[in-house]
Amino acid sequence: MITSETKIQVRYDEVDKMGYVYHGNYARYFHISRTDLLRKVGICDKELESQNIILPVIEISIKYLKPVFYDDFITIRTKLLEMPEIRIKFQHEVINQHNEIINVASSTMVFVDVNTRKPMIVPEILHSKIESYLKHNDQ
Amino acid sequence: MITSETKIQVRYDEVDKMGYVYHGNYARYFHISRTDLLRKVGICDKELESQNIILPVIEISIKYLKPVFYDDFITIRTKLLEMPEIRIKFQHEVINQHNEIINVASSTMVFVDVNTRKPMIVPEILHSKIESYLKHNDQ
Amino acid sequence: MITSETKIQVRYDEVDKMGYVYHGNYARYFHISRTDLLRKVGICDKELESQNIILPVIEISIKYLKPVFYDDFITIRTKLLEMPEIRIKFQHEVINQHNEIINVASSTMVFVDVNTRKPMIVPEILHSKIESYLKHNDQ
Amino acid sequence: MITSETKIQVRYDEVDKMGYVYHGNYARYFHISRTDLLRKVGICDKELESQNIILPVIEISIKYLKPVFYDDFITIRTKLLEMPEIRIKFQHEVINQHNEIINVASSTMVFVDVNTRKPMIVPEILHSKIESYLKHNDQ
Repeated sequence: MITSETKIQVRYDEVDKMGYVYHGNYARYFHISRTDLLRKVGICDKELESQNIILPVIEISIKYLKPVFYDDFITIRTKLLEMPEIRIKFQHEVINQHNEIINVASSTMVFVDVNTRKPMIVPEILHSKIESYLKHNDQ
Repeated sequence: MITSETKIQVRYDEVDKMGYVYHGNYARYFHISRTDLLRKVGICDKELESQNIILPVIEISIKYLKPVFYDDFITIRTKLLEMPEIRIKFQHEVINQHNEIINVASSTMVFVDVNTRKPMIVPEILHSKIESYLKHNDQ
Repeated sequence: MITSETKIQVRYDEVDKMGYVYHGNYARYFHISRTDLLRKVGICDKELESQNIILPVIEISIKYLKPVFYDDFITIRTKLLEMPEIRIKFQHEVINQHNEIINVASSTMVFVDVNTRKPMIVPEILHSKIESYLKHNDQ
Repeated sequence: MITSETKIQVRYDEVDKMGYVYHGNYARYFHISRTDLLRKVGICDKELESQNIILPVIEISIKYLKPVFYDDFITIRTKLLEMPEIRIKFQHEVINQHNEIINVASSTMVFVDVNTRKPMIVPEILHSKIESYLKHNDQ
């Protein structure tokens, strides 16, 4: 439905003593890429937060296929395949500079009202922004 | 088969602007807890590394149920349910100081020869240590 | 005036590809140790925050003498040498399991009112807790 | 002598519960910026490491003037003011998108031979690259 790509160069502090990007750091990369996808659609997570809506992650799953090394250039390809209702689910792929698939993953978030700390349905603005984006970009 | 518990107090730098432990940090907690379980059995990952055997993670999956806050005391309960062959798979649960389950997860690692960077079968020492541990501790 | 010691075992994700604790991570260790010293005196930074008082760091300075490795046991010795007025300044030393000094550092924080985001003088509660602590513990 | 600028957009996981970039993270930003400056001169730290030369940090000092927030665009301006002999010292400034100075810092590294783990004098290649860079760029 909607695809976004984020390019990242691996930082020194992201690599462990095996010389690989520390496996826990991919969750951070996926986060950056989700933010980029939402921004492309016209939604800024910072603005949602200023409206007291936060998006905690409720599920993440990663299959690691190959390591990534310091200074490597990677692409995080993130897809939103379904219109979000009470959850928003993303598919992720990390690809290195040799066009090899490094890992595949998915992550799911919910929308939470900061004041009640309870889940809420997806904000209307998100639906309308996604529909508007899809109308103007046939993918 | 083998259960181990690790107690951690949440650090300031582990919490995000929502006031929750950043979701990517649980992978780090599970890592600490796996190391503790292996140590309990008599295996030290540092010694394996000095023998040129590393244990990269090939799969991780986390379901987040509740948030954890700064300064909270959490317990990471990690279980090894099956004798490892070419993979070693752990089950994890995070429990907070109110005895609530915070999240459930699993993680899988392989054994890799540093020189060839190829996967290898589980080192014999690991089998014998696990068997010896089980003989002396009926769980 | 007041000394506190915090013991930490180095985590895998804290070590870089040189095999050393990443130099940026010591700021995190000092933070934990400052919190421990304040807790010893009877001040909890979490409670200060719930009273809308935050303590941003305004200065940090570290001299690194020796590296620390994965799994090492280190002690962070933190000292408060002067009664805080508008700033609170700590001295730090990291010592490893062989009793070697790893690095020496200092860090300074101010007290900020969350609502105005302006610095404020040190909360009265902090003075009285420190005086009370000193009366009961001649160091 | 040589100035380099690195532009970074603040990531969600780099911000603490005060809503500020966690103070310990600036050491990571300075690291990225040092690497960029050296790359501009023609030196790649990855290549030095493959020649068994590592560059541990021996001193860092940071004065924090203003906070930086999530999603902010910052510039890390790094300067090398003196020809390195046994140490290489950098000056840093972080500037935000409103052109405000966020903090000022310095960091010093030494060159260490991986095999002996002893400090060494600055590699000849670094001198000649810096001289060559200066000849072609009068700053």
